[in-house]
Amino acid sequence: MSRIRNKPWADQYLKDNDHIVVQEPFTHKGTWKELFNEDQPVHLEIGTGRGAFISGMAKQHPEMNFIGIERVKNVIVGTLKKIIEADVSNVRLMNVDAKDLRDIFAPNEIDQIYLNFSDPWPKSRHEKRRLTYHTFLEQYEDVLKTNGNLVMKTDNQQLFEYSLASFSKYGCIIEEVSLDLHALEDPLNVKTEYEEKFSEKGQPIYRCKVRFPER
Amino acid sequence: MSRIRNKPWADQYLKDNDHIVVQEPFTHKGTWKELFNEDQPVHLEIGTGRGAFISGMAKQHPEMNFIGIERVKNVIVGTLKKIIEADVSNVRLMNVDAKDLRDIFAPNEIDQIYLNFSDPWPKSRHEKRRLTYHTFLEQYEDVLKTNGNLVMKTDNQQLFEYSLASFSKYGCIIEEVSLDLHALEDPLNVKTEYEEKFSEKGQPIYRCKVRFPER
Ligand SMILES: C[S@@+](CC[C@H](N)C(=O)[O-])C[C@H]1O[C@@H](n2cnc3c(N)ncnc32)[C@H](O)[C@@H]1O
Ligand SMILES: C[S@@+](CC[C@H](N)C(=O)[O-])C[C@H]1O[C@@H](n2cnc3c(N)ncnc32)[C@H](O)[C@@H]1O
Repeated sequence: MSRIRNKPWADQYLKDNDHIVVQEPFTHKGTWKELFNEDQPVHLEIGTGRGAFISGMAKQHPEMNFIGIERVKNVIVGTLKKIIEADVSNVRLMNVDAKDLRDIFAPNEIDQIYLNFSDPWPKSRHEKRRLTYHTFLEQYEDVLKTNGNLVMKTDNQQLFEYSLASFSKYGCIIEEVSLDLHALEDPLNVKTEYEEKFSEKGQPIYRCKVRFPER
Repeated sequence: MSRIRNKPWADQYLKDNDHIVVQEPFTHKGTWKELFNEDQPVHLEIGTGRGAFISGMAKQHPEMNFIGIERVKNVIVGTLKKIIEADVSNVRLMNVDAKDLRDIFAPNEIDQIYLNFSDPWPKSRHEKRRLTYHTFLEQYEDVLKTNGNLVMKTDNQQLFEYSLASFSKYGCIIEEVSLDLHALEDPLNVKTEYEEKFSEKGQPIYRCKVRFPER
């Protein structure tokens, strides 16, 4: 009910901020550079949620551009709110699904991809929906620069185990693994909402960085 | 002191059991088959310690042959004792160092390698001593069959993180990862002495299975 009631308001809010929220995402393939003030590396977060990560990263890294995608409209308004509050000009957002990346970006348009606390889809019959299933990796490879990186964080043990094997079988090089990210306090680590929540409960946070190699 | 006092006894014990303990390990390169009663796959454990794993595996898998190497004489006597107690005929042991694998085995002589709770060598200046450093991986690749597997278990977070990246950078495929092996009771998992000790303390046990691919 509240979802339905919210929608017109959300639509209006996203439209009113079309300097941040890209209204026609499928019309910029190959020309994403032009949507930013500065010509600098483009980092893409998939599933931005309430936006703590992308807004924090954009503030920490003015020398980079950030694109956030989030498929749930009532969630991406949260990201938008955070970006406005952070008062940064190096972020663009889109209300799209990661399965369409290849239609949105041209090859080599993205420098780095972030997957933060992606939905785990624990049942094996839902394997295809995991954002580290090989069909998604194919899309990431297509849009990433050669030797581009993907950085993943999660609290979910099964998803992390699955993802490491999935990356490796796909041909990615696993460059770094952390099995307890918060064991060492890293002041540069920007926490997501889920990360804050799960680490407060004392759960270990997993992270890995993988590289899509030249073929 | 006790080390020195023990040695003559250990020497004698190893010699007395030359049907299990291979006395001249460097003279069997390419002909390891002949030292076993049955012509069946050969699994190699590196650093057998007190022998709980190799004796348990040999009992569970009469359809396989096992070779255990351990570089400390006063430790390998423990393995030998366990093998004698287990009353199995499919195990051979050697008091050698893993760095010499290439001089001991011919290419393709080994079907699978186990690294159990290898010394972590946490200091980065000791990286070369870790049994998952690339110079060791080269030796494993040389002696393993094409598509041969290496199975690693450890409680040591840093060693596991390091090893996953080391395997991947070397070109191995990470096929399976478990970040809490004992979360699901697997009746077929044979525990090592260290595994027993650390899991009793409630520490998670990590395991991975990697494949050395065709080149
Ligand atoms: C579990 S939440 C985590 C949110 C945030 N990254 C964090 O760490 O706090 C996962 C988010 O990813 C979004 N998402 C899941 N699958 C997606 C897809 N295929 N394309 C775009 N967004 C997706 C969900 O709508 C949800 O907001
Ligand atoms: C920490 S202990 C673990 C013993 C046993 N695998 C377990 O899990 O209970 C490591 C063992 O590996 C042996 N080792 C270490 N480096 C070795 C090498 N390069 N070659 C042969 N054995 C080695 C050590 O002597 C020691 O007995």
